[in-house]
Amino acid sequence: MEKPYVVGIDIGGQTSKIGIVDARGTVLTQSTIRTDTHTDVNLYLDDLCSALNKLADQYGGIEKIRGIGIGAPNGNYYTGTIENAVNIVWGGSSAIPFAKLMTERLGIPVALTNDANAAAVGEMTYGAARGMKNFIMITLGTGVGSGIVINGSVVYGHDGFAGELGHTTSVRYNGRQCNCGRVGCLETYASAIGVARTAREWLEMTSEPSSLRELTDIITSKDVFEAASRGDTLAIRVFEFTGKKLGEAFADFVAFSAPEAIVLFGGLARSGDLLLKPIEENMNANLLPLWKNKIKIIFSQLKESDAAILGASALGWEL
Amino acid sequence: MEKPYVVGIDIGGQTSKIGIVDARGTVLTQSTIRTDTHTDVNLYLDDLCSALNKLADQYGGIEKIRGIGIGAPNGNYYTGTIENAVNIVWGGSSAIPFAKLMTERLGIPVALTNDANAAAVGEMTYGAARGMKNFIMITLGTGVGSGIVINGSVVYGHDGFAGELGHTTSVRYNGRQCNCGRVGCLETYASAIGVARTAREWLEMTSEPSSLRELTDIITSKDVFEAASRGDTLAIRVFEFTGKKLGEAFADFVAFSAPEAIVLFGGLARSGDLLLKPIEENMNANLLPLWKNKIKIIFSQLKESDAAILGASALGWEL
Repeated sequence: MEKPYVVGIDIGGQTSKIGIVDARGTVLTQSTIRTDTHTDVNLYLDDLCSALNKLADQYGGIEKIRGIGIGAPNGNYYTGTIENAVNIVWGGSSAIPFAKLMTERLGIPVALTNDANAAAVGEMTYGAARGMKNFIMITLGTGVGSGIVINGSVVYGHDGFAGELGHTTSVRYNGRQCNCGRVGCLETYASAIGVARTAREWLEMTSEPSSLRELTDIITSKDVFEAASRGDTLAIRVFEFTGKKLGEAFADFVAFSAPEAIVLFGGLARSGDLLLKPIEENMNANLLPLWKNKIKIIFSQLKESDAAILGASALGWEL
Repeated sequence: MEKPYVVGIDIGGQTSKIGIVDARGTVLTQSTIRTDTHTDVNLYLDDLCSALNKLADQYGGIEKIRGIGIGAPNGNYYTGTIENAVNIVWGGSSAIPFAKLMTERLGIPVALTNDANAAAVGEMTYGAARGMKNFIMITLGTGVGSGIVINGSVVYGHDGFAGELGHTTSVRYNGRQCNCGRVGCLETYASAIGVARTAREWLEMTSEPSSLRELTDIITSKDVFEAASRGDTLAIRVFEFTGKKLGEAFADFVAFSAPEAIVLFGGLARSGDLLLKPIEENMNANLLPLWKNKIKIIFSQLKESDAAILGASALGWEL
């Protein structure tokens, strides 16, 4: 029987998105369920499979699905398990054999990895990295995630958890405290939270005038972006600082895998030139001569609202 | 006709080593020629092929050779070229199609890469990394080189030059000047030259007693090792500092490719526990929790005198 579709599932702490995708990368239909209403993974799976079956019924039923790809926090590609996912209520403290449990229910192969790796596969399959064999996906959201592609395959490493570039060290001494327990991680500077933190620190430390001082709520990265877009000098410098941290880090990443391009994805990547210019400038200033001005920095070409589903779904074609 | 042997060639700035190797990783016979006596690559190749033919004649002639592997500075695996190798007199300023020139003369396939990548293939084929699919080779010699293996293959990147971990940043601000033109590279701290430099700086900056003060010649890393072995406190701290720089860097490398092990090779690796203990301690202190105490640091198992030939020769089996 012909199986023309794949399913992409993006499991977040609060909600999970499910979509059916065709070979051209069109999300034919999608829906959302709550992740956080069940403490038992089996009850969550009941909801998920029920939602998936409903979607599939619109397109000829579950037997038209070739494979299911899932992006999930701490998803292990090798084992199909979700391990110690503290931000998911049913994530528990040990390894949940999620892919296996789902295949048992639906009779369809399931692949699972973390969201940044899924985004990299999505970009390679449908987006800006089509045709590329060597690139690095950097997701700039609440945190900084990464998916590394070498010779056309995502790098999972010995244990399935490779590609944690948000937790490489940006500032070695007196760096910012990171949620991971370490200090000075790139993520503490270059994420949406990092941008807001830089702005708040600078507003506190200096008396420099800035339109951000007029805000009464806690300053977010969106506020900083809007202020910078209006020409606010302090806000512009926050983006320059953020781009410097990213550019410096990217130079080290290039020394590792010599990628053709680094692809930026996520909310902060929408800052455009405000972030891109300082990234390019600082990356090139820190690259070995052989790579100067040769590494492309490009933006994801996946539609933001579909990206998480598309990324996960792309894993389904590999099954 | 049966072709039971491969040839390994290690091209250094002053001399080149040539050896014939069997499938068990035994160097059956070897010889050395000068690299620096010819400014023309063709004359150098005449010498090299003549030396190689002589060796081959001892083992049934050139037709018994399956392939030739070469480790050379700035060797590009994809193109078989040696590019801008400033330390080789015939290296010139452009790309020399070395593998092609050699195949034309001998009628045997030739693969070429840099020495650290060759060492990684050697370790995987004959040494401490046998059976490993994911590891990082770090060569601690005059400089710091690296060969990264992912899914059983050396990472060459988009352009053939991936794996320059000696030129990732160890100290971001006020770091030591590196020969590459950058500042703060790992290599300026963690190489043999870096060790000697640290010792000389500390002797100059402090009045701490040390047996190193009695030396009349310029202090080398070997002097520092010998002093540390005798219990010299300053020399021991130089190794602790060097190990700290390596351990911190290794934590970032692990975040990239999640290797099973990091394999140490080269002169400085013979320092044993003096270097190993601070590396392990500082790597584990800087790793994400999921990797703490899980990444092996091991020493190369290739015999030092044969290692360069063995490493290069291992490429010959892949042809």
